[in-house]
This record gives sequence, structure tokens and C-alpha cells, in this order.
Amino acid sequence: MITHVAFDADDTLWHSEGHYRAAQSAYETLLASYIDVADANVHARLLDVERRNIKRFGYGAKGMTLSMVEAAIAMTDARISAVDIQRIVELGVAVLEHPVELLPGIVEAVADVASDFTLLLITKGDLFHQEAKIARSGLSGWFHRIEIVSEKDIPTYQRVLDEVGIEPARFLMVGNSPGSDIAPVLALGAAAVYVPYHLLWAMEAGHGFDVTSPRLRQVTSAADIPAAVRELAAT
Amino acid sequence: MITHVAFDADDTLWHSEGHYRAAQSAYETLLASYIDVADANVHARLLDVERRNIKRFGYGAKGMTLSMVEAAIAMTDARISAVDIQRIVELGVAVLEHPVELLPGIVEAVADVASDFTLLLITKGDLFHQEAKIARSGLSGWFHRIEIVSEKDIPTYQRVLDEVGIEPARFLMVGNSPGSDIAPVLALGAAAVYVPYHLLWAMEAGHGFDVTSPRLRQVTSAADIPAAVRELAAT
Repeated sequence: MITHVAFDADDTLWHSEGHYRAAQSAYETLLASYIDVADANVHARLLDVERRNIKRFGYGAKGMTLSMVEAAIAMTDARISAVDIQRIVELGVAVLEHPVELLPGIVEAVADVASDFTLLLITKGDLFHQEAKIARSGLSGWFHRIEIVSEKDIPTYQRVLDEVGIEPARFLMVGNSPGSDIAPVLALGAAAVYVPYHLLWAMEAGHGFDVTSPRLRQVTSAADIPAAVRELAAT
Repeated sequence: MITHVAFDADDTLWHSEGHYRAAQSAYETLLASYIDVADANVHARLLDVERRNIKRFGYGAKGMTLSMVEAAIAMTDARISAVDIQRIVELGVAVLEHPVELLPGIVEAVADVASDFTLLLITKGDLFHQEAKIARSGLSGWFHRIEIVSEKDIPTYQRVLDEVGIEPARFLMVGNSPGSDIAPVLALGAAAVYVPYHLLWAMEAGHGFDVTSPRLRQVTSAADIPAAVRELAAT
């Protein structure tokens, strides 16, 4: 019944969250010259600013960079130097320009799934940055269709299925984010393969899904994706 | 022969460039406390930074804001205060959040063209910001398909035509930007209606196109778009 398999990109095809974490760790080090970073709870305050700014900036490294600048000015009561603000901008640029490192076994898994299904790539975030990473990954040729969207929710998946012209029963999503890749897809009546990554962005955490769904498989590595897809396709 | 008509968005459906100009003018005023803005040629230096950063940030207000921050730090030799950097970030946020003001006569023109053709919207820039403006415009219902792309060049138009499943001869683009809306479309063999806006972003300037093409019409206002579209469709 399943004919179309879509892959998420960040932390499903390639490492991503680690680069954001590295930028935030360097950010804390930089702020330590101005404030007691443990006391100021930099992590929580940055997340607050990011959460508020999501509706202004959307997801992605450029919005994160602007949020880091804004939060640094607020947390230091505007004592931070322009030189350090420039360093913060450069932390964001490093996230935008990091080399794409594919997850172990993912090329083989994508090629294997492509031998039996039509592949899509559905990723959330900044259009320009996602396109750049897809180009650098060398994987774009496997995907019949690439959708870069601003939010991965039920209406977005419904729109993509409508444009492809298929019912949810023919669709399966592979990804690492419970809230973006699994919950909305199961809610639509489609299938999902959940491949947790060892890091999950705080803003993606806290989304539950029906772990008992017969349309769901959880695997621990890319190598296990093809078998899980075929098992769901056979049921 | 023409069945599909695509509209550009910024400065074709609604005012846009004026908001960027207002931000840049406020930026110059702000920098005047640090440097002789006439002498420093703020305009040209900002454009230099933006041009270099396009390949890092892509188009849009978030990239412009990061470029404004970076250029201000460079131009003031890092003397700019964190308070003023926060003000620069807010200038960018104002561009992101400005209300959408439709161009005079554009609703009627879109509705008129929609009575005879399938409409698309093809716009370049930041995914999140463009989606927000499309939603605020109230016009999304007219468009069969909305494409937010990172670059409006020949390969991008070719991809959109392939996805829609039509030949260039069935396609017409309406827009204000010679380099993004007119030149690549004429080069593909499709038709174009050029509606110049009174402001054009410096980065879009300098693109020529074949003004003698029989597949081109130039009009001065939105009200003249439907007749120009029908004239090209009849040839």
C-alpha cells in the first residue's frame, strides 16, 4: 500500500543539532566575561528569546543568530562590546557554513529504500540554508521531490500529499523529531519510522505520539530503516 | 496558448522595497552619531557587505539585518554601542513585521486574470517572511500554487514549469524585477508582463532583457495587467 517514503533532513540524513549546540556553548563562554553564566541561566534565557522570536524569524540559523545577539545585549545590560557581538554573528555564520556530515549508513539506507519506493525529502527551516545543505550532501538525486517548509504540522503534510496526489495510507515518513516527523504523520493516518538522534533541540522536545500505533516502527540506526519501511509496507 | 500566469509578490502585489529603504535610512541616521555618514558612504559599504553575504544568508530581511549589524561594527571600528546594535536589530524586525499594503488595483487585476488563467505566485526570499506576507495579504486563495524560491533564474523557472507540467509557451510571468521576473522568463521562451515599481533594490538593478521581444508587454499600473496578459495570450 505504501508507495512514497519521505525523509527528514537535519539529524536524519546529516548531523545538525551538534553544530547549534557548539555555537551555544561558544556563546556561553563568550558571555562569561560579562556575567556569571551559571547564575544567569544563559541557556534558559536564550531559549526564551528564541521561543518569542520564532513567530518573527521562523526556524533556522539566521533567526538563532539574531536571537543570540538580542539575548546577549539584554543579559549583559548592554555592556557587551561590538567586537563580541561580531563574534556572535560569526558563530551563526559557522552554523550556516558547516560541512555536511552524513549519518553513518544513511546513503546505503536511502539507496535501498529508493529501489522500492518513490522518495521525498521534507525538511523544516530556512530555505536558503536547507537548499545549501541538500546541495552539499550529494543526496538530492535520490529524491523525486524536495519540500522545504516553515512548519511540519498536519496541514503542511496534507498539502504535500495533495500536491503529490496520494492518500495518507500510501505515505511513510522517516525522521528523528517526535513533534515534526512522527506525531502529525500518525495523526493523518500515514506511517512513520522514528530514528531518534542522540541530541534533540529543546524546542522540539515534549511532543508525544502514540507509541503503540501499528503504523509506527522505532529503529536505532540508519541501517535499520529499510527493513522497518518494508515491514510497515507489508502490513 | 497561454494557460498559466504567475505573479511576483514584493513590489508587484504589495509594497516592499520602501520598507527596506526606510530601515536603511534610519540605519544611516543612527550611524551618524559615530561616523560622517556622507563621507563613509554608508550606502555603498552596506551594499558591499550585503553582496558578500548573499551567498551566506540568501535574500531577505533577516540576512539584511545581520549584514547591517556586521557593517555597522566594521564602519564604526567597533565603537558602536550594544544599545544601538539592538536598535539595528529592531529596524530589521520592523521590516519583517510591516503590514502588507497591496498595490492600487492589484486585487481587481488578479481576480480578472484568474477568470481566464490558472494563477501561480512565484516569489524569491525568506520562506518564513514570504509566507507571513502572503497570509496577511488575503490573496493566497487566488493562487493554484505558491512557490517561494531562493533564486529566480532559468533553472528555477524550468523546475516550476516541469512540476506544473507545462511548456514555456503556456506560461506568462507578471513582475517588477527585470532580472528576476522578466529576463529569465523571456530566455526560456515564455511571455512576460513587466510592471516597473518606482523603487528597485540596487542588487536587482543592471539586468537587461530584450525590450523588442514580441512576448513582452510593459505596463505602468496593475490596472493594465489583464489587458496585457490577454493581448499576449491572443498572439
